[in-house]
Amino acid sequence: MEKLVQVVIFGASGDLAARKLVPALLAIASKGAANLQLVGVARRPYSDAEFREALAARLDPGERGAFEAFAGRVHYVRGDAADGLEPLRTRLDELAGGAPAGRLFYLSLKPGLFVPAMENLGGSGLLQGGPWRRVIVEKPFGHDLASARTLNQTLHRVAEESQIYRIDHYLGKETVQNLFAFRFNNAIFEPLWNRRHIELVQITVAEELGVEKGRAGYYDAVGALRDMVQNHMLQILALVAMEPPSSLDPETLRDQKVAALKALRFPREDPPVRARYKAGTADGRPVPGYLDEEGVGPDSTAETFVALRAEVANWRWGGVPFLLRHGKRMPKRFTEVKVQFRVPPIQLFDTCAQPPVVDGLACQLRPNHLTLSIQPREALSLGFGVKVPGPGMIMAPAELAFDYRDRFGAQTAPAYERLLLDAINGDPSLFLRNDEVEAAWSAVDALPAQPLLDYPAGSWGPPEADRLFHGCEGSWSRG
Amino acid sequence: MEKLVQVVIFGASGDLAARKLVPALLAIASKGAANLQLVGVARRPYSDAEFREALAARLDPGERGAFEAFAGRVHYVRGDAADGLEPLRTRLDELAGGAPAGRLFYLSLKPGLFVPAMENLGGSGLLQGGPWRRVIVEKPFGHDLASARTLNQTLHRVAEESQIYRIDHYLGKETVQNLFAFRFNNAIFEPLWNRRHIELVQITVAEELGVEKGRAGYYDAVGALRDMVQNHMLQILALVAMEPPSSLDPETLRDQKVAALKALRFPREDPPVRARYKAGTADGRPVPGYLDEEGVGPDSTAETFVALRAEVANWRWGGVPFLLRHGKRMPKRFTEVKVQFRVPPIQLFDTCAQPPVVDGLACQLRPNHLTLSIQPREALSLGFGVKVPGPGMIMAPAELAFDYRDRFGAQTAPAYERLLLDAINGDPSLFLRNDEVEAAWSAVDALPAQPLLDYPAGSWGPPEADRLFHGCEGSWSRG
Repeated sequence: MEKLVQVVIFGASGDLAARKLVPALLAIASKGAANLQLVGVARRPYSDAEFREALAARLDPGERGAFEAFAGRVHYVRGDAADGLEPLRTRLDELAGGAPAGRLFYLSLKPGLFVPAMENLGGSGLLQGGPWRRVIVEKPFGHDLASARTLNQTLHRVAEESQIYRIDHYLGKETVQNLFAFRFNNAIFEPLWNRRHIELVQITVAEELGVEKGRAGYYDAVGALRDMVQNHMLQILALVAMEPPSSLDPETLRDQKVAALKALRFPREDPPVRARYKAGTADGRPVPGYLDEEGVGPDSTAETFVALRAEVANWRWGGVPFLLRHGKRMPKRFTEVKVQFRVPPIQLFDTCAQPPVVDGLACQLRPNHLTLSIQPREALSLGFGVKVPGPGMIMAPAELAFDYRDRFGAQTAPAYERLLLDAINGDPSLFLRNDEVEAAWSAVDALPAQPLLDYPAGSWGPPEADRLFHGCEGSWSRG
Repeated sequence: MEKLVQVVIFGASGDLAARKLVPALLAIASKGAANLQLVGVARRPYSDAEFREALAARLDPGERGAFEAFAGRVHYVRGDAADGLEPLRTRLDELAGGAPAGRLFYLSLKPGLFVPAMENLGGSGLLQGGPWRRVIVEKPFGHDLASARTLNQTLHRVAEESQIYRIDHYLGKETVQNLFAFRFNNAIFEPLWNRRHIELVQITVAEELGVEKGRAGYYDAVGALRDMVQNHMLQILALVAMEPPSSLDPETLRDQKVAALKALRFPREDPPVRARYKAGTADGRPVPGYLDEEGVGPDSTAETFVALRAEVANWRWGGVPFLLRHGKRMPKRFTEVKVQFRVPPIQLFDTCAQPPVVDGLACQLRPNHLTLSIQPREALSLGFGVKVPGPGMIMAPAELAFDYRDRFGAQTAPAYERLLLDAINGDPSLFLRNDEVEAAWSAVDALPAQPLLDYPAGSWGPPEADRLFHGCEGSWSRG
């Protein structure tokens, strides 16, 4: 039998716990990947049985069978991050029954509660002893560099950095990990992966939804840049831009990510484009503008769209634009990385004298591109030119395509399952180190304030974002 | 209306004329790509009408309608390559009716007749005058360097090199041309296309058939090396290995092919492997050995399988093995170029400690490869590694695939149509220049004599061929 692991979720009655964490733990337990006990902590006056019922009610029907087998290992302690933690400690010890148990504390709390919760945990002594004690901290890791530093300092007062697992669920996605594996397990991409061969890199997170119900208060305080770009998108950027690590040791790997993030600049001459959606359409139906969403105040200044031009100022990437774009209420939901290569130094196949025969593209030399689709499709495609059959040397664009699901079926585990298992196994590779978080904030904090433009819901954002392509061939991907 | 073109086929009653040349000319005429008259020359005592009937009888049913429209432009002159050509000249002049006509002479003759036919054509004055006069010469261009030189000298006595179109129908294949277009229209392959990144190149022409009926006499005199490798396969090799030309001008392009062929060496320490098929199976049925084929003598010394290790001794390719293999009676028919890349300098994803989960390949770092399938599929595929979904960094092989037919449908024109149209339009890019032919013979002539091994029909050839991989990872492709 695997050694006992006690997982404590603070904020156990919340949405994240019910929708993501409990299903992930259930999957881990069902697969026999760990010998788990789960203890929920929240303010509601649940008994163990009531907590189990509340969780079961929110599971998918297909998961309920597995939950019945697991329910006996699910417990509840009423409490608060600021309360004394003696009842929790007593319960954990009882449940362990004298066996040595690793303990994983998951802080699924509002940002304002991170500091008091950590101080309380530290003061209670729960972070010491046992085979191991670890804490998973949810985003946001502060709202700027100063607050992130304060949060990191608090964490370090009560725990070692090696005990702290700052979670970014994007890193739990298979396709995001595959970006890393793809670069460093294949010999043919790395020689091309630099300023000599790459013209620009686009990273897009486009959402069809507007602000989510119940999340408007939080969202309105941070906006698109801090909600999505600073964390998830810069993590993807770090995986695209990092130097190859010499091993998969977590620190060696994260050292290289930090090095890439420390080289990140947002050039002053290319200020970001911020915008907010106004009324428009989604899925063919009229939808309100952001200011009319429930929970958004009339004096809101939050952007729901942001486009940035970044540079990774090192020998590998100097001068290559990294174009980042994130927006809500866009025409389509997709997350992708698109690497656009330079065109050949000479255009041999000059076919402008002949009528264009395929897609009207005969005259134009199209750059090669490699697109890594992260969601909703998990796929890779390589865009290149092939000869159109027939006389003459007329080229047409073609795609070499690979679909992750076609190859492996629906094996892909949800991001939280992977990350919780890694935390249980003590592998912090896919979690953020303090210096990573601070390097990302440092780059974002340097961005100049910009006026807030608008765009109709259901459009690709304000046309002003196009100017970020200056000096390059290309345009924003439409997925 | 396009200017008049008179195509004269010497050997018009032969198989090549009926199966390939007439259908190609018919297609060219039907598409309105040239204003053609066709004059067949052979020994049989045909009238125009009988010649037309004989051709029509051998066409596919789908082509007969088009042939009816074209038949009025098909004529016949009884004659021989060694006969006086006055009747032909008179007939051509009559048919032109005083209009200026380009004339294309196609020598679809036995090798022994090339020299007398060219001398005769030259002596008759038919190669002078008019808007243009061109000659297409079929393979074989000699049987060694000396005979090729003699043939070229004869040709040059009666015609300019610019009038001579040495045909290699492999160069008329779309996929072969696409190899060229693929390399030089895309910026991402050329940086990888050298000794630093490529481990080895394999070129395979595998045939399921044995020696063809009616061709055994010719085949037995030349063998696999001279029938397939010296011409078609070295042409493919030249397209793989050549430096990028600075333009598509036919001479600039052929200069680079010649440069690659002149750098070709067959290292003495890797002598070729020659073999002949013995009785075995094809398509599940027993088939006789080569010596028992109709038309093959008991003292035959011809090989039906040959495998070679070549090197292109220049700065781009020095040290990279080019492995060539051609055989009859192999288990499968396919022609392909497989470029195998080096493995990454470090193996990050060392997964041998874990159970292999996909295809038993978890422990092995697989090299990337790019495979260009020429027939029967016309396709491109890029083999690379992706992460297997789930915990750990386990890699599995995957393919990015592109099928020419899926993209363009069955638009691909037959090789002879493309090449005849090029000759009519005066574009010799896809025809062989005298120095190309001589460079290829020069390399092949230097091969040392080798004993003749055997292999069962329906097998992959003698195991001795495997030794040509010495010092490299890899094995012969099975298509």
